[in-house]
Amino acid sequence: MQIEGRNSILEAMYVNKKIDIIYLQQGLNFGEIENLAKERGIKVVRVSKIELQKMSKTPKPQGVIAKMQDFEYCSIDDIIKDDGFVVLLDSIEDPHNLGSIIRTCECAGVDGIIIPKHRSAEVNETVVKTSAGAVNHMKIAKVGSLNDAIEYLQKCGYFVFATAMDGELCKDTNLKGKIGIVIGNEGNGVHRLTRQKCDGTLRIQMRGKLNSLNASVACGIILFQALEQR
Amino acid sequence: MQIEGRNSILEAMYVNKKIDIIYLQQGLNFGEIENLAKERGIKVVRVSKIELQKMSKTPKPQGVIAKMQDFEYCSIDDIIKDDGFVVLLDSIEDPHNLGSIIRTCECAGVDGIIIPKHRSAEVNETVVKTSAGAVNHMKIAKVGSLNDAIEYLQKCGYFVFATAMDGELCKDTNLKGKIGIVIGNEGNGVHRLTRQKCDGTLRIQMRGKLNSLNASVACGIILFQALEQR
Repeated sequence: MQIEGRNSILEAMYVNKKIDIIYLQQGLNFGEIENLAKERGIKVVRVSKIELQKMSKTPKPQGVIAKMQDFEYCSIDDIIKDDGFVVLLDSIEDPHNLGSIIRTCECAGVDGIIIPKHRSAEVNETVVKTSAGAVNHMKIAKVGSLNDAIEYLQKCGYFVFATAMDGELCKDTNLKGKIGIVIGNEGNGVHRLTRQKCDGTLRIQMRGKLNSLNASVACGIILFQALEQR
Repeated sequence: MQIEGRNSILEAMYVNKKIDIIYLQQGLNFGEIENLAKERGIKVVRVSKIELQKMSKTPKPQGVIAKMQDFEYCSIDDIIKDDGFVVLLDSIEDPHNLGSIIRTCECAGVDGIIIPKHRSAEVNETVVKTSAGAVNHMKIAKVGSLNDAIEYLQKCGYFVFATAMDGELCKDTNLKGKIGIVIGNEGNGVHRLTRQKCDGTLRIQMRGKLNSLNASVACGIILFQALEQR
């Protein structure tokens, strides 16, 4: 995997991710990144602005690109714990949304995120950058079937909620203890069968005319309303 | 101004924005956009996929681009009302964040948004698209000085809060009545002098290690926590 941008790379270095090589744009000063790379014996190569832009997969690499091992997904069992707080993503397709949701989950103290193998954004360069490094602090499990994952969580004592336009308000719902919250796809929300698997539903009370929130903003509002109780 | 994408253009048509011309990609069917354009006598031109991509200013125009009049900003007085709920943006620079914040404000029933003339993203194509059409339902005032705007709101009876890492928790603060909430810049938060102008501060209680939320997600969490009381 290739990661880009000063903060993303520094964050990866702080948590000791294995970095194979760092490319830095000639003529720029990278302070801490250079110091840490030297300290740890990470190979650093200076390249021209044009070469760096050619290598870049994001709009603003900020003069620095690192090659590192692919993101390591965990198993559901790694996420389960007492008073657990898990987020399940039902086919989030936009890597910017996935990155932003990972960032939000980190701030909310979520134990881990479960994503399906198919029809879902994966942890790639864009996700790492949008997550602002949060991906290094978040356990993410990739599963064959989200519905099976919900069943497994339920067996482990979790109460799982689907977010839905016609769900219950957070304040009217007990969100303490072991819970999972399913966030739906950007366009279609939570799939019908997945919703049927869940123990309850949650919604955000809205006041506008359009009432269409971005998936990552909706996720943030729900998670932090849940935190009020936890 | 040029707007792109099916939903953005349909939304602009629904609220009767004056559209000069619509470019549609050859070979695709645009159903309602075409019907409405015909009904209202809006000029429609079919262009090839390549021509459309050349005209496009966003990554995914979805085969449709419209040229329309620039966004019309309002004055602060247009936003002021009883039990008013206003958001002030202290130098949001990323148009995606501005668009997402406008979308979030619409869902929260905010009366209007105040942005500074300088060092701030403006309502452009990207903002319109990211707002998913919410910009057509939101009053936005562009002011010379955000600090003067805060003073004016205070004279009109508003209690203005700055968001800050060391602020008060929403649940410990009275957020009823006429309030304004200042959301800070992506990197630096609310400017010191602007914060000093405010009557109070607000923060989000976080539980993670990084605790850095995206500006539009943070805005959503604060606004909907305020709504719980309103």
